[in-house]
Amino acid sequence: MGTNTLMPDMTDMEFREALAKVGDWIANYRKRVGELPVLAQTAPGRIERALPQQAPVQGEPLESWLRDLDELILPGITHWNHPGFMAYFGITASAPGILGELVSGMFNVNGMLWKTSPALVELEQVVMRWYAAAMGLPADWFGMITDTASTSTLVALAAAREAAGLNIREDGLSGKPPLVLYCSQEAHSSVDKAGLVLGVGTKGIRHIPSDDLFRMRCDALREAIERDLREERRPFAVVASVGTTSVTAVDPVPEIARICRHYGLWLHVDAAYAGTASIAPEFRWALEGCDQADSLVTNPHKWLFTPIDCSALFTRRPEVFRNAFSLIPEYLRTGAQGVVDLMDYSFQLGRRFRALKLWFVFRYFGTDGIAARIREHVRLAGELAGWVDAHPQLERLAPVNFSVVCFRVHPRGMDDEVELERLNSTVIEKVNAGGEIFISHTKIRGKYSIRVAIGNLQTTKDRVRRAFELICAAGGIWIGGGIGGRTQCC
Amino acid sequence: MGTNTLMPDMTDMEFREALAKVGDWIANYRKRVGELPVLAQTAPGRIERALPQQAPVQGEPLESWLRDLDELILPGITHWNHPGFMAYFGITASAPGILGELVSGMFNVNGMLWKTSPALVELEQVVMRWYAAAMGLPADWFGMITDTASTSTLVALAAAREAAGLNIREDGLSGKPPLVLYCSQEAHSSVDKAGLVLGVGTKGIRHIPSDDLFRMRCDALREAIERDLREERRPFAVVASVGTTSVTAVDPVPEIARICRHYGLWLHVDAAYAGTASIAPEFRWALEGCDQADSLVTNPHKWLFTPIDCSALFTRRPEVFRNAFSLIPEYLRTGAQGVVDLMDYSFQLGRRFRALKLWFVFRYFGTDGIAARIREHVRLAGELAGWVDAHPQLERLAPVNFSVVCFRVHPRGMDDEVELERLNSTVIEKVNAGGEIFISHTKIRGKYSIRVAIGNLQTTKDRVRRAFELICAAGGIWIGGGIGGRTQCC
Repeated sequence: MGTNTLMPDMTDMEFREALAKVGDWIANYRKRVGELPVLAQTAPGRIERALPQQAPVQGEPLESWLRDLDELILPGITHWNHPGFMAYFGITASAPGILGELVSGMFNVNGMLWKTSPALVELEQVVMRWYAAAMGLPADWFGMITDTASTSTLVALAAAREAAGLNIREDGLSGKPPLVLYCSQEAHSSVDKAGLVLGVGTKGIRHIPSDDLFRMRCDALREAIERDLREERRPFAVVASVGTTSVTAVDPVPEIARICRHYGLWLHVDAAYAGTASIAPEFRWALEGCDQADSLVTNPHKWLFTPIDCSALFTRRPEVFRNAFSLIPEYLRTGAQGVVDLMDYSFQLGRRFRALKLWFVFRYFGTDGIAARIREHVRLAGELAGWVDAHPQLERLAPVNFSVVCFRVHPRGMDDEVELERLNSTVIEKVNAGGEIFISHTKIRGKYSIRVAIGNLQTTKDRVRRAFELICAAGGIWIGGGIGGRTQCC
Repeated sequence: MGTNTLMPDMTDMEFREALAKVGDWIANYRKRVGELPVLAQTAPGRIERALPQQAPVQGEPLESWLRDLDELILPGITHWNHPGFMAYFGITASAPGILGELVSGMFNVNGMLWKTSPALVELEQVVMRWYAAAMGLPADWFGMITDTASTSTLVALAAAREAAGLNIREDGLSGKPPLVLYCSQEAHSSVDKAGLVLGVGTKGIRHIPSDDLFRMRCDALREAIERDLREERRPFAVVASVGTTSVTAVDPVPEIARICRHYGLWLHVDAAYAGTASIAPEFRWALEGCDQADSLVTNPHKWLFTPIDCSALFTRRPEVFRNAFSLIPEYLRTGAQGVVDLMDYSFQLGRRFRALKLWFVFRYFGTDGIAARIREHVRLAGELAGWVDAHPQLERLAPVNFSVVCFRVHPRGMDDEVELERLNSTVIEKVNAGGEIFISHTKIRGKYSIRVAIGNLQTTKDRVRRAFELICAAGGIWIGGGIGGRTQCC
């Protein structure tokens, strides 16, 4: 440590010792995470107040940061890698994924150009093809990795805007007809945010009503497009969802693709969560028609056991992305021919070596292993749905397409929505306060719903059953339909 | 491994063993990286062709991925963490930074909301304050971490567009006056890309001429703004550069800030590379006037020894970012009061725990240690510049403000620019082919320039001297002004 120019960073020996200590720390964490309270045990501002106001002037030994990690940081972590994490979408930093993250941290390469890291660029291309093929998507699509689905969707819709042929790259949007973007009312907020960034504005974003199964209604989509055309607005893209965030609904992509073809609109598919499910052949149906899309996003950091961040953006029209984004300053010209320079396909210049961790995940699990684990998560969700359905005072509020179950406690005779919301939000609060599981909520056609999402590799049937029992207990209802048919009292 | 539901991921024992192996692999890599050829030794497509076309169906043991890492990936890596890496900007994944990356990979938390990881959100706030204070920037600015400066600048300019008061969030840009954005002709391409994404268009991006020291000319800026106003366009933002990519010039921020105030424009400062230098008090001058900016970006993954990606975005107007981006779907409502939900300040919903590695870097080095290392890099660049200046057949093409030296081989009597470009590009090719160092180029007022950037913690004076000698040798010129005054023949 210190300022000695002969010792600019840890020595080899120091680094190995530090790595062993930190490695031991994370292995211990991994082993005991299931016993920690899943939701952070802290109050707003507590960590901020506990830390010094200024950075240390002199360096401090590893032991002091590890102590702070234990004493200050750990209590403030909401443990996404916990088997009881069933909020939002359950995710996993699997062992091979963590190892990949470690190696890419060490390499510290920036894949802006082929030349600045050929291995990054080529491995990314290969792993994206593996991933596409494993999901049954066209293997000749161009794939690239971004940080999050928000970025993937923004980049895809920027390409869609370019594809509208209005010369927006040069002229900007001023003086152009108002652009319109379509998605279902169930679509993820990242679609709206992309619309804001791209200058479409909230007035140019149509949330098309969904049907009884929460799928975009194609008749309503057609009507909306026709109306916008009549009123001299300019439709340019439709975002279809495969696995909506709230209830994991799957839009009718084949029909939406036909509509897009008819009107000349870009079709972007948001399969951030459910795309990966198609690695198991029985879920291939979910991506039906997606081979007709112009672009598609799916997130390995959601259901493919890869540490955050890792979002896969596929397109059959990479040249449109280049048209939208390519802009090469002199200091980045390389003269390399026939290679992919990833910076040409996005607004982001720098990018880290994310393909490595995804490659390790594929190598460790294999596609059969991945499919088996996804199948198991869906099976667990199915069991939970079964217990819910068997219980007279629980009401399921949406179909279980994958590994998310939406339902509520609904005592006989309680029919006021305000009262039901109060009851169910209290149930969630109570359950989450217990620390064994963490669940979140959504609203479905105005009904406040408990939402249980299964996706962590360490989540077992016992843990799911426990979640069910805790919910029943917090709701003050009998625990019905038990394992092996037992019926217990709360 | 395999599909056994009882073993969903590596066991504790397997994980510890794998971690020890991979840890050993990366420690060995770190030790020997300086002996590897810095530029990848591969040909386009070689890695792609060497890998299977499909993902493995069954999982494979760690040994097989590590073998591929050695045999396939390593030769395709351009080693950014190499002491001879002097292209673009020299960077370092320091030991504490790598350890931080490992821990955050394990935690795998997503900091979209305070509730989804209080420690991530609060540590990020604290570390951003540490960083701002260490650079002498206002400690009460709001700071957040993004992936890259491209994103930081895009987000900042989206806020700037919102601040124009044209109701763009709702209406979009259609029907609004053409927006105009200003930066110097030396500004980074990310400014142009942000302009494209935001719908400003290339016609709305003004590249203001620079003076003899490559700084934005304020008279030209004023004229451009006046012209745009006369022609009924709508200026909305100026991007000033502190440390341009090509020659590390510093725009006259105090004067630019006055202009921005006068015309009511948002001032965004791109200090991606040079901002960090201000941790050493003698470089505080570089950020003079930046306390008047609306937003500022600087990248710890450039000169603060933090593995890519880590970009720091500061603003004194966080409420404008919220106005531009906040949009909270039901499933993300938490009811938490008085907390920062980072998703409200950007288009990105998900975000990983990047503050951890930056925290470790501050803890290990301390601000004095960071300043000493930056000082050493600048000193090394100064030595190189001295050797260049002392050599009659080398011509320096820009001032050395920080750690980047721009110069060319300029033999007596050779005055044709085409010939000089051919010579110098050949010099770079030859030097880079040797594998000991990797340098890049730029163009300065039409002159093709060699560009040597120092920024890796392991770069020593001997390595810089070696770079100098290799350049002289490749240029077929005498090696003048040697260490200790020696003069050698190539």
